[in-house]
Parts: sequence; C-alpha cells; structure tokens
Amino acid sequence: MNEQTQNVRSILRFNSGSTEWKEDIVAAEYPVTIKINGEEFVTMVCSPDYIEDMVVGYLASEGIIARFNEIKELRVDDKNGYVHVALTKKIDHLHRQMQNKRYITSCCGMSRQGFVFAADVKTTKKMRTRQVGIAPEDCFRLMEDMQHAAQTFQETGGVHNAALCTLDGIVLMRMDIGRHNALDKIYGYCLKHGISLQDKIIVFSGRLSSEILLKVAKIGCEVVLSKSAPTDRALELAEELEITSIGFIRAGSLNVYTVPERVVMP
Amino acid sequence: MNEQTQNVRSILRFNSGSTEWKEDIVAAEYPVTIKINGEEFVTMVCSPDYIEDMVVGYLASEGIIARFNEIKELRVDDKNGYVHVALTKKIDHLHRQMQNKRYITSCCGMSRQGFVFAADVKTTKKMRTRQVGIAPEDCFRLMEDMQHAAQTFQETGGVHNAALCTLDGIVLMRMDIGRHNALDKIYGYCLKHGISLQDKIIVFSGRLSSEILLKVAKIGCEVVLSKSAPTDRALELAEELEITSIGFIRAGSLNVYTVPERVVMP
Repeated sequence: MNEQTQNVRSILRFNSGSTEWKEDIVAAEYPVTIKINGEEFVTMVCSPDYIEDMVVGYLASEGIIARFNEIKELRVDDKNGYVHVALTKKIDHLHRQMQNKRYITSCCGMSRQGFVFAADVKTTKKMRTRQVGIAPEDCFRLMEDMQHAAQTFQETGGVHNAALCTLDGIVLMRMDIGRHNALDKIYGYCLKHGISLQDKIIVFSGRLSSEILLKVAKIGCEVVLSKSAPTDRALELAEELEITSIGFIRAGSLNVYTVPERVVMP
Repeated sequence: MNEQTQNVRSILRFNSGSTEWKEDIVAAEYPVTIKINGEEFVTMVCSPDYIEDMVVGYLASEGIIARFNEIKELRVDDKNGYVHVALTKKIDHLHRQMQNKRYITSCCGMSRQGFVFAADVKTTKKMRTRQVGIAPEDCFRLMEDMQHAAQTFQETGGVHNAALCTLDGIVLMRMDIGRHNALDKIYGYCLKHGISLQDKIIVFSGRLSSEILLKVAKIGCEVVLSKSAPTDRALELAEELEITSIGFIRAGSLNVYTVPERVVMP
C-alpha cells in the first residue's frame, strides 16, 4: 500500500486579484479490496495509511470478528491493492446475506460507483465543449448566493447544498444530509422537465471526491465549484473527463484545479 | 414521505460560561427503499424532500435508465418508506451483478449499517456506565488539541480526523478521507494492542450521523465530541444507547444533545 496520504499538484491560484501557478497539496484517495478466506468481501476507498488497523477495526465493527484472535493472518498486498484476511472461522450466513443487500448511507454509498468504476469512466462522455466561460468574481458571487439561500431554508447545519447555476445566478437548489442526494435531486428534476444541463454550472458545498466528479460528468456539466477541497483521484478524473474544477472558494481566493481554459481571468 | 427535513429537540446549550435548556433544530435523516419492478433494489438515507426527483436522478446516474420515459410509473409510499418504480424494461445483468458487489466510498458506505440496522441496535450494548465526567473546558481543549495536531500532519483539507482521548489529552489520532475509516483505524489499533476504550472519549471532526453513533457504540465509548452538527436519527440512537453526544464545539460554546449526566457544568 502506498503510505502517501497526500500528493502534490500544479494549480492555478487566484488570490485578491492576482493569479499564479503554484504547487498544491491534495489528499490521496486510495481503493483497497478486502479478501476474506480467499473471497472478495468489500472494496473501501480510504487514505492509504494504517490500512491494517483499518481492516481489523472494520471487521470488528461489522461483527465479522468478535475477537482479534479470530484473525489467523492479515497480509497487505501493496502492489495490487488487496488485503488478504484468513479467519479461524467461516463467514456466517447473515454476513453473506448482508453482502447481497445495498444500503446507501447519508454520505454516499457503494453502488454509486461500484466495481464498474473503470467501465463507468470509459462510458462517461468527456466534456469536449467549452460553452461556459467563468470569471473568479462569478465564482465568489455564485458561492455566496448558494450559502445565503442555504441559510434561509435550513437552520440545522450538517447538510450539503448543491445548486445548478448559470452566470446569472441560481436556477435550482437542493439540500440533503447525503452528498450525492442533493445532486440526484437536481438531476432528476432536470430530466423530468427537460432542462438542459450542458451550459450550466454546479455549485457544491462539500468536498470534491471522485464519486462527486463522476456524478457531475454524468449529469453533463462542464464546471463544478466547491467551497471545499478535492482529492487527487477526483482531479485525475476531472482532467480525464475535461471538467473544470474550482475549489476552496473563500473570501476572495480560489484554486483552479483542472481545465483552466474555461476560466476568464481578469 | 415525511417532508419535514428538520426536527426540533431539547438540548443543553453552553455559551460563554452559562448554561441553558433550549429548543434546537436538527437535520432529519430518513431511510427510503427503492423497489424496481417489485424487487427491492437499494435503501438510501436522505433528507425527506424531493424524494421523487432524487430517485429519478439516482436511476439515471447509475445508468439504470437511459431516458426519463423508461420510467412507466413512480409511486412514493409515505407510510412504509418505499418508492415503487415500474420500468419499461428489465434491469440488465450488469446491474444485477453490481448489486451483489460492495463498494464503500470515501464517505461511508452501505454495509456498515446494512439492512440489519434494527438488529444491530439491539445487539449493540448500551453504555450503562458513567465512567467519564467531562466539563465544557475539557471539550474545548480536546477539540483544539485535535485540530492543532491535524494541521501539523495534514495540509490538504478535506479529510476527517478522529482522536481517542482521556481528559488528559489525545491517546491516538487518525485521519482519513472516509469518515468511518478514521474511526476504524483507531478501533483496530486498540483491539490489536488491548487498549481499553470504555473510559475514553472520541473526538470527531465530522458530522454525527446515525452510522457514526453506531460505530462509537460498537467501539464502546461513552462520550463523543464533534465540531459539527448531528442528525435527528443519530440523537435518537445516542439516547437509546446512552451515549453522551456533544456537538457544535466552537469558540467557547457547545451543545449537549444526549445524556447530559456525564457533563460536569462549572
């Protein structure tokens, strides 16, 4: 397993009116598959440190093991991204059944990306068009619009907001405790009402992970703005799919991570 | 479906040295199960508004439907938490296969709570002990300790931090792009090294959702501190499992949501 939990990337930084290319550090996103007694059990996306502890903790909290000594052997296969676990017992029927059910928690979920991730990326269309031209001032204004609207209709904190925008402002805004759900609520509405998405911008309150980028691509937007940080895997995807991703939009500064050609610098 | 995305609860608020009971608004967390052509397909946890749009968007972004008109009928069954979808076609082989694979994204994932949620809660032991007595000043200090340590070893933003603490300070700290993973890394380490957890406190940077509460209970900690907001379902669980949950720990103020008996007010 690669123990590097962060990676360096070259980004276009805009701050208080001036622009520079600089090195930036982003969090690594790493998939690892647990095999139990030779069979694939689950794939987790994580930061690649303390993998062994994570697997032990996961097995215990899922109730797969009741005690640490039920693990006969645990071997991390760096090269192929596997953790091989040999237990002193067979996995019981309940856990097998559980394995065949899908449950998507409030954060995101498994099926949304699934084992077909590689295939997914191949079948997702690249955003070859450049219909949107966005300036830093637009980014600040749209982010502010969303945050202002969010405060008005939700007082609880702890929810994610997503807005579909043009340069003129918010077209549609949704919130959810689940990151993906807010985007799905927008996507579903647009499909039902035949609203075009290609010329629009997604503004998102949460972190840009690989699954969020993939969802933006499926929705068919060229540009995604986030208040928060991206992961390295999300940025690789954004580059591959030709999506302009802009993050850390805060108080007069922002980072353009990918496809800066759509950004109109002042 | 219940359209109420937030709920009112009674909390103990501490602010600048004084304490009061007050009404607080927390985000609702609602599970909904999609049935396609009569078969259970997936359960999602969401905020209960725009459910129909969410299901349409989900099916489209998963590639289950290619066009909106492949949905023959979509009926929301409020009372039982189901959405019944009739498609003009059968679900193809690939999606069935996908359904049988587990993939846990960086946020959390399906299996961690699973369809056995109800059973899970029943088998998770209540924290009947009151070994920990914590004062607001302890909460501020431990949260600060964690944030300070987090800044030192991770420069990227966008990761979650979890720390295992006593009143004296941090015993163990882990970070991960996945909310659960940071807790699993702590749990695994403690199991391996036989470290007792009952007298300790979990400090967490992220939101308190029901799955996080359940994990804290499985780990066996009496108290969880968060910088962020809880959901209503997390608080119901915390009450049921007798875990003291304290949130919104920021700049001299905090909210005690459940089991305030472990909090020593000045």
